[in-house]
Parts: sequence; structure tokens; C-alpha cells
Amino acid sequence: MGITRSVRRLAAYVPGEQPKARRVVKLNTNENPYPPSPRCTEVLARFDLERLRRYPDPEFAALRTALARLVGADPECVFVGNGSDEVLSVAAKTFVENDEAIGSLDPSYSLYRTLAAIRDVKWVGLPLEASGDRGAWEELKERRVSLFLWTNPNAPTGTFAEPAAIAAFARRFRGVVIVDEAYADFSRTNCLPLATASGNRNLIVMRTFSKSYSLAGLRVGWCVGPKDLIAALYKVKDSYNVDAIAQAVALAAVRDQAWMKANVAKVVRTRTWFVERLVRDGWDVLPSESNFVFARPPHAPARDVFAALRERSIFVRYFPGPKTGDRLRITIGTDAQMRKLLAALKRIAA
Amino acid sequence: MGITRSVRRLAAYVPGEQPKARRVVKLNTNENPYPPSPRCTEVLARFDLERLRRYPDPEFAALRTALARLVGADPECVFVGNGSDEVLSVAAKTFVENDEAIGSLDPSYSLYRTLAAIRDVKWVGLPLEASGDRGAWEELKERRVSLFLWTNPNAPTGTFAEPAAIAAFARRFRGVVIVDEAYADFSRTNCLPLATASGNRNLIVMRTFSKSYSLAGLRVGWCVGPKDLIAALYKVKDSYNVDAIAQAVALAAVRDQAWMKANVAKVVRTRTWFVERLVRDGWDVLPSESNFVFARPPHAPARDVFAALRERSIFVRYFPGPKTGDRLRITIGTDAQMRKLLAALKRIAA
Repeated sequence: MGITRSVRRLAAYVPGEQPKARRVVKLNTNENPYPPSPRCTEVLARFDLERLRRYPDPEFAALRTALARLVGADPECVFVGNGSDEVLSVAAKTFVENDEAIGSLDPSYSLYRTLAAIRDVKWVGLPLEASGDRGAWEELKERRVSLFLWTNPNAPTGTFAEPAAIAAFARRFRGVVIVDEAYADFSRTNCLPLATASGNRNLIVMRTFSKSYSLAGLRVGWCVGPKDLIAALYKVKDSYNVDAIAQAVALAAVRDQAWMKANVAKVVRTRTWFVERLVRDGWDVLPSESNFVFARPPHAPARDVFAALRERSIFVRYFPGPKTGDRLRITIGTDAQMRKLLAALKRIAA
Repeated sequence: MGITRSVRRLAAYVPGEQPKARRVVKLNTNENPYPPSPRCTEVLARFDLERLRRYPDPEFAALRTALARLVGADPECVFVGNGSDEVLSVAAKTFVENDEAIGSLDPSYSLYRTLAAIRDVKWVGLPLEASGDRGAWEELKERRVSLFLWTNPNAPTGTFAEPAAIAAFARRFRGVVIVDEAYADFSRTNCLPLATASGNRNLIVMRTFSKSYSLAGLRVGWCVGPKDLIAALYKVKDSYNVDAIAQAVALAAVRDQAWMKANVAKVVRTRTWFVERLVRDGWDVLPSESNFVFARPPHAPARDVFAALRERSIFVRYFPGPKTGDRLRITIGTDAQMRKLLAALKRIAA
């Protein structure tokens, strides 16, 4: 008794560094370089403390309805969590028996392995190219994968799978597929039409306010999918999982689509020229439809470039390991930040 | 595959009603009738949106340090969650194996049974009077209770157990004891000295900002206990479980102890005269050291009084069942609210 065996074994997820210093060029955790909608400030400035004295709406009706309207779904098909992290941990309780497993692409968001470890079930990685592969399917079945997390665009690669391919996968898969579309606002298309289609029985699309809405500090994630699966998530979540301020601020952000889209357009423009520059300088850059790029430096090992940038107070992300260790994941910041990065890379190469 | 068997079986926890209408006299969810510290408003009004753009501090260092200082503990002995609800659900993963059980007093906070059901383990109720009883101990052991949740003051009864009794229980108990002190600021003493004592190996005290600090809408709960147990909670929690605004607002509230204590004193004064009045009117009132009372009406069944009050837009809480169904749980509101309630009770009795 005391701490469980699985928690003792557990290696905690290590989030990207959050340096205290303000002058750091921070391109390591895929935050949006532009601020959230000014309507969020207004909400905070005139927030009625009476609403803090009372418990929040446990079903966040206003926010849920606004999100449902945004994607053309019934509000009963929408669930909101304390960040996508909570949506995922609730889903891991709701859709995975103790003797089943959680699957994801490999490489993908490293949190998924930790999620499986915390849930004390096995994790199964599907090599990125193998989603149509017979052997891979056998393995998903044999290892009893009942929840598959498909990040699209993927992280840390930034690469994009066509919705048709994901739809085909979901049709064939016996469990629940959550398409983690944290970065989808930066892509040319997405899987929302699959999640809201009437014939859909097992596909959930998950979104977050952390990236395109510039609200990583607020912790609001949400998902849309079949009514019965969503209702099950409500049964499992904590009673009051999204606080009153977060509900109000997220609602203000949803209502200002123009602001979000303008910021996304700026990031995509910056991504375009930045990728061109990297390619010209000899980097191998995976095609990105997200707010970051995953790229292999031409001359020095990724780990060394990461360290040299860090010394110059430029933070990017480095994931050690055979599938990721030759590249850096670089968040798209402002034009000025990317120019600073390029200048630093030039000095490092010299 | 799909929704797990235990979630299909699950009857979701039903939180107290949150009526939309403002003119309701709301004495049903133990909210504080007085507003949170005005310093919370200041924090909101001048909140820098830059802090929302970025991820929050995953270890809420400033808040954690302030709480540690408040109780005379090392910051490493303090954990913060998205409400006590999250502290509990993280604890249920951290301290309970799949074949172990969660125990609590009976009657107690009804959420605990749901918590066990969501964790898919057994729940064991310890009759309120039986904590020293030999048979009860045998049952805790036989049924492999590894986490015991002791609410003190208890809910819905409001009754108080002496810290010495809880200490004796914890010394004898093999698993982890969480003393849920949601209402302890309204009591004459508490178990914090037990949680911070150097010899303590298995007792955690949990607190919330929802009651004495008037911040139910904010969702911040926290706990203090042995370093190794607290470190395990950090491994299991979601990476960024407390958002940037909640961290800042809670910190402002902690720093204004005078405000919280003044509100608590007002509630306790109101409780004193209100209980006297109920007793004089023939109610059976359990001795309360919380911000609510649990009382049996003299003439009509509790359920009927509950319904009659509700018709008059006065909300109190009624818990059906053999151990609770003869009483009402009435939150202590303002003096004016309690006078309205007493007037309504008089009309109902007439």
C-alpha cells in the first residue's frame, strides 16, 4: 500500500522548458507568438466576482453551444476539458479497459506514452508509414488497442495525413479514434466533417485553445464526436472541470474568429518564408501544416545546434531518440524571432 | 471496445443545482455568501495577456510557496489541483491499485463513491461511529482499502472529529489517509499540524479555495503531506493542471488572510444564532463546525420541507437515503438570507 507500483515505475512527462527570463526567444513549446483576442482582456477586466463565489456551470452550456455552432454539431456532441490533457485522461478512463491498450503514431506527441503509463495500460506505437499495413493491423488487434490517438498534423513532425486516410483507418478500427487536431487551424483542411457526420460511430476530433487562439495559459481543450461517446466522457469528468473564468475567456475567443484567423495567417506566412530559408541553407525540412517545423540541420548534429542556440537564449525543442534525434522542432514565432534564429544559426555554422 | 464496462454501469455524481435565476436564496452547495478578496479583482483587471499566450507554470511555484509558508511546510510537501476534485482523482490513481479499494466515512461526501466507481475499484463505507471498532478495522483490511478519505468537518453532517482521533486512525491504517478539510477554516482546530509533522508517513490534509476563500468558481484545491506521497501526485497529474489565471487569483486570495478570516467570522456568527433559532423551533441540529448545518425538521418530513422551500425559490440540499433522508443540509448564508429562510419555514409550518 502507499504509492502504486505503476506510479513508482512511471517516468513523468517532461514538458518543454518555460524559462523565466523575458528576453529569451522562445520557440520550444509551439505557443502562438501573437496575443489572444482583446475581447479576452475585456472579459477579465469586467469579470463579476459573484461568479467566482459560486460554482461554475458544470456543463459549460454557453461555451459548449458556441463550439457546437462553430462546427455545425449538436451541443450534446461537444465536450470541454481543462486542456486537451484532461480530455485525453478522461478518454483513457472512458474507452480503455485495464487489459486493453492505447495506440498512437510513432513518432508522435510523447505525452501519449505517459498517458498510457498513468492509466497503467500498454502503449502501442504505429510507425508513421504503416497505417495501411497488414502487420500493423494485426498488432493493434493482438495487443487490444481500444483507443487510438492520431495527431494531425502530427507532432513533432508537423506532417499531415489526408482526412480520407484517417476515415479509412477509423472505419476499420474497432475502438475509438481521437484525432488530436491541436494544430489543425494551421492546416489546409481537417477532420471535423468526419466527426460530425451522421454515420460516425467511433471518431472524435479534439481541439485546443492553446495554439491558434493563443491561450495556452488558460487550459481549455474540447472535442466533438458521437453523442454516446461524448455522454460517457461527461460521466467520467470531474464535476466542475472548467472554471468560470476559463469558460468566459474561451467563449470570448471563440466569438472572435477573425482575430484567430488573422494570427494563423501571419504564422503561416512566416512559416512559408522560414522553411524556404532553411531549405536554401541545406536543412532537410518535413512538409509542415502546423505552427512548427521539424528539420534536420545540414552540418552539425541536431543536439549540438540545440545546445548552441540555447546558449544564445534561443529555445527550440530537441527530442532524443532514434526516430527524432536528428532533427529540431522549431516553433514558428514572429518574423523578427525567426530572423534572430536564422542569424544565430549562421553564427553557429561559422 | 468503446465505452468501458465500468463507465457504462456508472451513475454520474450529481452536483447541487446551480439555478440561473439571481433572486434565488441559494443555500444548497455550501458556497460562501460573501465575495472573494478585492485583490482578486485587481489581479483580473491587470492580468497580462502575454501570460495566457504561454503555458502556465506546471509546478505553480509562487502559489505553492505561499501555501507552504501559510502552513509551515516545505513547498515540496504541497500539491495543487484543478479543484479538490482533481486532487482526489489524481490521488485515486496514485494510491490505489486496481484490486484495492477506497474508503470513507458513511455518511460522507457522496462524490467519494463516484470517485471509486470511476477508478473502477470498490468503495467501503465506515459507519461514522465505528472508526475505533474492531469489526470495522477487519473490514478495511479484508477489503483492501488503501486510500481513506476522512472529511473533517464531515459533510453532509457538519460534525467534527478531534485531530487526535484522526491521528490514531492514521497510525493504525496501512494505506494513505486524506483528511478532506474543505470546511476546516470554519472549525476551532484542524489536522494541519499532523500533516506537517516530521514523523508523518501517510496523512495528507486537503484544502480548497471554494468555501472560506469564496472562490468555488475558480477550481483550486490543494493538499499538504509527506514529500514522497506529494511527489507521486506530481507524476500523475496532467502537465499544466492549474491555469495561469487560477494560479494568480488564488495567490492573491492566500495573501489576503484578513479578508478570508473576516468572512469566516461572519459565517460562524450567523451559524450560531441560526442554529439557536432552529433548535428553539424544535429542529434536531447536529453540532456543526462548518458553513452548513444538517438538521431534522420537527413536524414534516425533510423531503417535503425541501420541496416547499424550493417552490419559494429557497434552495437547500436534500440527500435521500436511510442515513441522510430525514434531514436537510442548509448552507449558512448572510443574516438576511437566513431570516428569509426562517420566515419561509414559519409559513410552511402554518
